[in-house]
Amino acid sequence: MHNFLELQEKFDEFFHQKHFPEQPASLYEPLNYFLKLGGKRVRPVMCLMGNELFEEINPDAYPMAVAVELFHNFTLIHDDIMDKAPLRRGMSTVHAKYGEPTALLGGDVMLVVAYEYLKRIDGRYLKKILSLFNQTAMEVCEGQQLDMDFEKKEMVDMHEYIHMISLKTSVLLAASLRMGAILGGAGEGNQQHIYQFGKKLGIAFQVQDDYLDAFGDPEKFGKQVGGDIMSNKKTFLLIHALETAGKEGKKELTSLMESDRPDKVEKVLAFFRQCGIDAWARELKEKYIREAIGHLDEIAVTSVRKKPLTDLMHYLVQRDK
Amino acid sequence: MHNFLELQEKFDEFFHQKHFPEQPASLYEPLNYFLKLGGKRVRPVMCLMGNELFEEINPDAYPMAVAVELFHNFTLIHDDIMDKAPLRRGMSTVHAKYGEPTALLGGDVMLVVAYEYLKRIDGRYLKKILSLFNQTAMEVCEGQQLDMDFEKKEMVDMHEYIHMISLKTSVLLAASLRMGAILGGAGEGNQQHIYQFGKKLGIAFQVQDDYLDAFGDPEKFGKQVGGDIMSNKKTFLLIHALETAGKEGKKELTSLMESDRPDKVEKVLAFFRQCGIDAWARELKEKYIREAIGHLDEIAVTSVRKKPLTDLMHYLVQRDK
Repeated sequence: MHNFLELQEKFDEFFHQKHFPEQPASLYEPLNYFLKLGGKRVRPVMCLMGNELFEEINPDAYPMAVAVELFHNFTLIHDDIMDKAPLRRGMSTVHAKYGEPTALLGGDVMLVVAYEYLKRIDGRYLKKILSLFNQTAMEVCEGQQLDMDFEKKEMVDMHEYIHMISLKTSVLLAASLRMGAILGGAGEGNQQHIYQFGKKLGIAFQVQDDYLDAFGDPEKFGKQVGGDIMSNKKTFLLIHALETAGKEGKKELTSLMESDRPDKVEKVLAFFRQCGIDAWARELKEKYIREAIGHLDEIAVTSVRKKPLTDLMHYLVQRDK
Repeated sequence: MHNFLELQEKFDEFFHQKHFPEQPASLYEPLNYFLKLGGKRVRPVMCLMGNELFEEINPDAYPMAVAVELFHNFTLIHDDIMDKAPLRRGMSTVHAKYGEPTALLGGDVMLVVAYEYLKRIDGRYLKKILSLFNQTAMEVCEGQQLDMDFEKKEMVDMHEYIHMISLKTSVLLAASLRMGAILGGAGEGNQQHIYQFGKKLGIAFQVQDDYLDAFGDPEKFGKQVGGDIMSNKKTFLLIHALETAGKEGKKELTSLMESDRPDKVEKVLAFFRQCGIDAWARELKEKYIREAIGHLDEIAVTSVRKKPLTDLMHYLVQRDK
């Protein structure tokens, strides 16, 4: 059994190779640039962990993990175009540095290369894994579309928001674990539990992300606290506040959000605290963590094999924070 | 054996089904719109023809042909974004009608659905076909990138141009035939000949396209004659003219291209005729047709089986025109 850092190192060793041809450099160099920006490689490590939960690591898990990481990077490159984002990890995005057409085409070809890595998987597992990968890829695109749709909508209810967040971020975490489990020979029941563990964990992570953007310690958070409030982003916090504040409260919050007063963030945070949104969000995160743990408990392998996944969970979502 | 129209009808019957989920309609409806714009379905028919050259049509040839057609449409949607094209087949392009983000994301998801169709192929052939499909998809992206690079380059030589055109348009025709041949159980030699037949045919078609844009009958051509000259597009004709016109001629042609005089098209055409570019282009097309036929001749099946491919060739490239 290996822990997160060990698997990250194993993956990096394998990932540190040429993924693209040399020419035309105008197409492939921007992709090498983007991959060098780094990242925690959470998804490929989850592929390896899902695999090792059931069996010693199958050599095919490495190309599969590369496929997942390339897919994730493809979505980042294209999302950055759609969001007109100038920076990613403190560096220029691909379209900002090389132009939109190259970023678009580069993302496309990165997706094709992801499938070329998937193709290496043994024929016994290939179709099952392709199915799950395709289904997940479609869902991730659907999540991004819903996210864009929601920006134009006045009201989004909690049910819709959780659905969107699940598609946009959770299903890829869930599928990474399950793809590993398939390669490890897991049965259908165990596969479903590991998938649900990943999905619930992903939602808990997103609740935490929304929470920290509002209530996080600016020193530790790394991003500007209050950014979501400044940009009127629909988050777990805002949606719940609008749903529970009552008619007058809703009016007050809406008018605060629409204003550009200098103390907007401060005022909205005070409003959130007054309604107990901070405590509610901590409890919501706890609820998803408990559900995730429930699914992990149901997986029919010895507890010791589950340790890396429990550690991963604590790494991604800090409890009581 | 079936001819082009029969195979087109068979394909359309299979293609006329839902390829995408209902929801979110904001993502999938634009794709249904685009597919309804139609097209000659040349590539999927080539999948079926490549298959029937060797064997009765394998049922897996239909989902494979759908994958190729969806891939082709994905490239059109994304190319239209890159080229900022407002119209395709006389109708609004996806990005013009639904916005760039949706066109980008819709293209992405269409590519994923193409892979979902490929997944249906029998395990005996799946990896070989995925390999060829992935290789081809990468080449098509490379061709599009080179095409964009060439727009910014002052001089492009004939060798580079033929390389770009092969990647951008010919390899997908060639691969469609070869994917069909793989499903038909063709050996390596036959596969290579059918691939080269498609590739040479594709280049001949592009020479013809460049030729007709300059010298075609406006009544029959369907597009504005002289469009390439108006937009200073690098074509077989222009590149050859610049390479062979001598120092003075090159100067004259360059200054004509850079001008926006009302008789620019007329003057450039006169220049082309004076240098014999029209006759040269007809001969170049003939040369590629002869090479295509040479590869078809080498395929070890009875002549009668080759008839649909010969007819397809005459449909795509008219000789002595």
